[in-house]
Amino acid sequence: MKIAVLGSGMVGSTIGSKLIQLGHEVMMGSRTRDNSKALEWKASNGPLASNGTFFDAALFGEILFNCTSGQVSPEVLQLAGRENLSGKILVDIANPLDFSKGMPPTLSICNTDSLGEVLQKQFPDVKVVKTLNTMNCQLMVTPSLLSEETSIFMSGNDADAKKTVGKLLNDFGWKEVIDLGDITTARGTEQLLPIWIRLMSTLGTPMFNFKIVK
Amino acid sequence: MKIAVLGSGMVGSTIGSKLIQLGHEVMMGSRTRDNSKALEWKASNGPLASNGTFFDAALFGEILFNCTSGQVSPEVLQLAGRENLSGKILVDIANPLDFSKGMPPTLSICNTDSLGEVLQKQFPDVKVVKTLNTMNCQLMVTPSLLSEETSIFMSGNDADAKKTVGKLLNDFGWKEVIDLGDITTARGTEQLLPIWIRLMSTLGTPMFNFKIVK
Repeated sequence: MKIAVLGSGMVGSTIGSKLIQLGHEVMMGSRTRDNSKALEWKASNGPLASNGTFFDAALFGEILFNCTSGQVSPEVLQLAGRENLSGKILVDIANPLDFSKGMPPTLSICNTDSLGEVLQKQFPDVKVVKTLNTMNCQLMVTPSLLSEETSIFMSGNDADAKKTVGKLLNDFGWKEVIDLGDITTARGTEQLLPIWIRLMSTLGTPMFNFKIVK
Repeated sequence: MKIAVLGSGMVGSTIGSKLIQLGHEVMMGSRTRDNSKALEWKASNGPLASNGTFFDAALFGEILFNCTSGQVSPEVLQLAGRENLSGKILVDIANPLDFSKGMPPTLSICNTDSLGEVLQKQFPDVKVVKTLNTMNCQLMVTPSLLSEETSIFMSGNDADAKKTVGKLLNDFGWKEVIDLGDITTARGTEQLLPIWIRLMSTLGTPMFNFKIVK
C-alpha cells in the first residue's frame, strides 16, 4: 500500500520504518522537501522510502498517519490539502499536549472534546481513526518488547476504516485491539496521557503499557 | 482502628463492610442520623458498625474514607467539620463526574486541577490520599475477582499517610500499589474515568481493571 507519514520526528520515523519493513511504500511529509530529518530517514530506509511536503505526501498516500505534535496537527492537515485527504483514512496518533505552561504538560483539548474529534470535524470526509496514541513509539511498532501482551485502543466513526487499521495494527504485532466506538471515545484515550506521563517518571521508563484485565 | 466512611451509597457500603470484615470499627456518615441506607448497612454488619451524621462520623474516625459523589464532596467535608478532620487521613475515592450534560458523564474538574487537589486545598491540614477511584467497588475490596493481578494507584503529599493507606490496600488484597507522587497526580487517575466508562460499555461489564505492564 502507498502510505503517507505526516511528521518527521521520532514517531513518524519509527512508524515509517515499520511500514517499510512490512513492504509498504512510504512517503514522509514535512513542511519542506529538504527537511534534514526526513532526508536522513529516507536515506536509511531503502527504495520504498521517499519524502516530500505534507501536500506531496497526502497526495501520494492511500492511508495517512498523523505523526505530528497535537498542537500543530490541524495546521498540518490544512497544508496537506483538503483535496488530497478526501475519502482517505487518517490514523491519528497525535496527542494535544500543551508544554507552554511547564512540566508536566497539560492537555490543550480534553474532557468535552478531543484532538481526534477536532480533526474529524475539520475534515468531515476523512475517516479519522484514533489509535497508537497511548504508548511510546518503540512499543507502537513492537509491542512484544513488553513482558506480556498489552492493550491498544481504537476510536473512529467508520467501521471499514477501523477494520483496515486493525489489520495494520495486527501487522505491527498487536493482538488485543479494543474498539471503543466512535471518534468521541478519543477523549478517553487522549486523557490517558496525564497518568502515562506520571507513570513514566514513577517507573523511570517509557517502556510500559496498559493492559485491560477482566 | 476507628474508621469513618462518608457516604452511604454502594461505594460506602462496600468499603464499610470490608473494613468491618478486617476487624475495624466503622461509622458510616450521612446527612442525617436516620438515613435508611446507613441504618440498613448498620443492621447487617454487626456490632462493629455504627452510623451518624457526617459530623458524627468524622469526629469518630481516625481515618476517613470519602465515598460520596465527587460533585458533593467539598460540601460533605464542610458538614463533617473542619475541627474533626484536622490532622487525619482522608482516603479520597470520589471522582468529579458530571452527569448534568447527559451520558456519558464528563469531568467537572480535570486536566489543570483535580478533586483530590480541591479537597487538599480546602483542608490543608488533612492528609488527602487519592486511591481506589479507578475501578468498580466490588474490585476495590476484592481485586482477586479478576483473572490476574492488576494495578492500583495512590496520590498524596504525605509519605506516612500513603504508607498507612498502602497497608490498608494490601489488606484489601492489592499487591501492586503504584505511588504516583503528590496529590497533583490525582489528575491522572481521575482522568482515567472517561476511558473507564467507555470500556465498561465496550466490554459489557464493570468488572475489569488496568494493569501496568513493563
